[in-house]
Amino acid sequence: MSQSFSFSLDKQCSQSRARVGTIDTAHGKIETPVFMPVGTRGAVKTLTNQQLEAIGAQIILGNTYHLMLRPGMDVMEKAGGLHRFMNWPHPILTDSGGFQVFSLASLNRVTDKGVTFQSHIDGSKHFLGPNESMQIQKAIGSDIVMAFDECSPYPCERPQVEEAMARTHRWAKQCRAYDLKEHQSLFGIVQGGTYPDLRRQSAEELTQIDFEGFAIGGLSVGEPADIMNEMIDVTEPLLPKEKPRYLMGVGTPRNIIEAVMRGVDMFDCVMPTRNARNGTAYTWGGKVIIKAGRYADDFTPLDPQLDCYTSQFSKAYLRHLLNVNEITGLTLVSLQNLAFYLDFMKKLRQAILDDQLLTFYQQICDLYPE
Amino acid sequence: MSQSFSFSLDKQCSQSRARVGTIDTAHGKIETPVFMPVGTRGAVKTLTNQQLEAIGAQIILGNTYHLMLRPGMDVMEKAGGLHRFMNWPHPILTDSGGFQVFSLASLNRVTDKGVTFQSHIDGSKHFLGPNESMQIQKAIGSDIVMAFDECSPYPCERPQVEEAMARTHRWAKQCRAYDLKEHQSLFGIVQGGTYPDLRRQSAEELTQIDFEGFAIGGLSVGEPADIMNEMIDVTEPLLPKEKPRYLMGVGTPRNIIEAVMRGVDMFDCVMPTRNARNGTAYTWGGKVIIKAGRYADDFTPLDPQLDCYTSQFSKAYLRHLLNVNEITGLTLVSLQNLAFYLDFMKKLRQAILDDQLLTFYQQICDLYPE
Repeated sequence: MSQSFSFSLDKQCSQSRARVGTIDTAHGKIETPVFMPVGTRGAVKTLTNQQLEAIGAQIILGNTYHLMLRPGMDVMEKAGGLHRFMNWPHPILTDSGGFQVFSLASLNRVTDKGVTFQSHIDGSKHFLGPNESMQIQKAIGSDIVMAFDECSPYPCERPQVEEAMARTHRWAKQCRAYDLKEHQSLFGIVQGGTYPDLRRQSAEELTQIDFEGFAIGGLSVGEPADIMNEMIDVTEPLLPKEKPRYLMGVGTPRNIIEAVMRGVDMFDCVMPTRNARNGTAYTWGGKVIIKAGRYADDFTPLDPQLDCYTSQFSKAYLRHLLNVNEITGLTLVSLQNLAFYLDFMKKLRQAILDDQLLTFYQQICDLYPE
Repeated sequence: MSQSFSFSLDKQCSQSRARVGTIDTAHGKIETPVFMPVGTRGAVKTLTNQQLEAIGAQIILGNTYHLMLRPGMDVMEKAGGLHRFMNWPHPILTDSGGFQVFSLASLNRVTDKGVTFQSHIDGSKHFLGPNESMQIQKAIGSDIVMAFDECSPYPCERPQVEEAMARTHRWAKQCRAYDLKEHQSLFGIVQGGTYPDLRRQSAEELTQIDFEGFAIGGLSVGEPADIMNEMIDVTEPLLPKEKPRYLMGVGTPRNIIEAVMRGVDMFDCVMPTRNARNGTAYTWGGKVIIKAGRYADDFTPLDPQLDCYTSQFSKAYLRHLLNVNEITGLTLVSLQNLAFYLDFMKKLRQAILDDQLLTFYQQICDLYPE
């Protein structure tokens, strides 16, 4: 167990299972519920650390799979870890690489020891199992390490989900037994697909292991939102209240607030940055499809209600930049979208503190129905 | 003549024809010799205005040809000009569009009235002549407007150069006669290819017109550096001392300092930003080809002698970002290169003020031999 990691519950919502809390790490505090911008390969796409700090990013996520391929762990170790390599002094969470080897790579063989796969970049052969994942995340030096898991696709037959879950549980124990750095905490990942009884079984078995936090994995992989919420509903009551809960890869503002109301504390998603690069902005006026012709001469600011650098610029200007493929446009919209997500989480925390979460929920549903 | 524009000569170099001066415009002062980052389509590629301000950019350049095609002058006029459109409160210079219609577009017909051409984007037909160029630059509202000219290629037969030059002179008069906005100044452009007598003739004819400044155009189009310097040598003595001189599209640090020593005050070039995107960094340790294998585990800062945000990052990290095609890498290296160019100009001004220009010139030749 890490000595540097702690979680305190600051407020329990009076209107839902939502909570406000504080995670403490060796690299700083994180106020929850939190959204973690995704910095897959050691950078949040199109942005600098300075821009992330300016919008109040508390923690970013790095991807073990991508970082093990490039720059590779030799460079990462020599650099003294990802914080120093990318010059980010704040908390970092890394995923285990499990999700990517099962979704991105060409799989050669899956055994109880792990996965032999071919890199999606050059076809080179690699092996990743629980020990390798821990070894790599130790070299990365992330504050929050994720156990190596097998995530089932959606839909998926029950026997396959059972097998992946059982393997995830065995791997979870091996990960916990691995000797990480003193400052590193380890989160277990609940699997079980869309089978409520398997979700319960997974939560019960995993919570036998003394992880610093628990993730709900294998969701947001194509299933409808009501099934996702149902899986959170069956899982969450079995997770210890005094530890943070992390819903991986989620999601829209509405997905997030609905999960928060079900007791989830942490989120990550590529949606704000990826959609920015596709020309969709998240604003306090709702989604804006920036390239739409009606914005050609709309000189009003993109989001006058958001205190963000991008707010200085008009829809017409941002539309022009995207239309002519100026990278600056991708940067400005990515900044907007992450600033919006972080502001949304801030308002969400405040709504819980003020016992106004249901009112805030209604506002979000009006702005972001999906 | 603009009432808002003035130029004062602050110091004449004791060791060369170099000068230190100050240009005053409605949008602020510009210390010369100055390098102007190129913001072709209303943004300096990969950078925000905030980043440009942080490295001390005094003035940026916009391209009439690109802006007339997208967003188009209808949008530009409704926006109230480029300063407001892109939210850049500092000086802007625009080129005339002449260089681009002769180099980028498919030409249909060149007459004394101007050029009929097809857009390089969608093949649509447009016409650009001296009146149209002034009309567009008036809508853009740039502080420094360039006269519409015809730039000869290199090499080029004398009769063709003579014809282009004569046309440039006729157009220059038409541009001067055009009623620009009160805050806008107009620069004439000397042509004449690589023929010394034509350069002299062009300078003599153009300086009959009361422009606020003079550009030397048609250089840096493929000719050797010594021919470029020779053309500056024959032109410069004929230009009025009390007005700024602008060498268009130049160049390497060595090109710039050699032109400054010949009496040139203003420069623009895509080199620092374009080369950044190709992975070449300009530093006070010389050129760095960032993707080179030897930097894979070089954790020293890219340029410890430069006070720039990018200086916080190691060569190994920047190499990694470029290797995995992270846009953040392009941004950081573009920032480095422009910061280097602006710092180079600052040191160059100081060297003139300190009567140390020849010593500084030798340092630059050692670092940047070409």
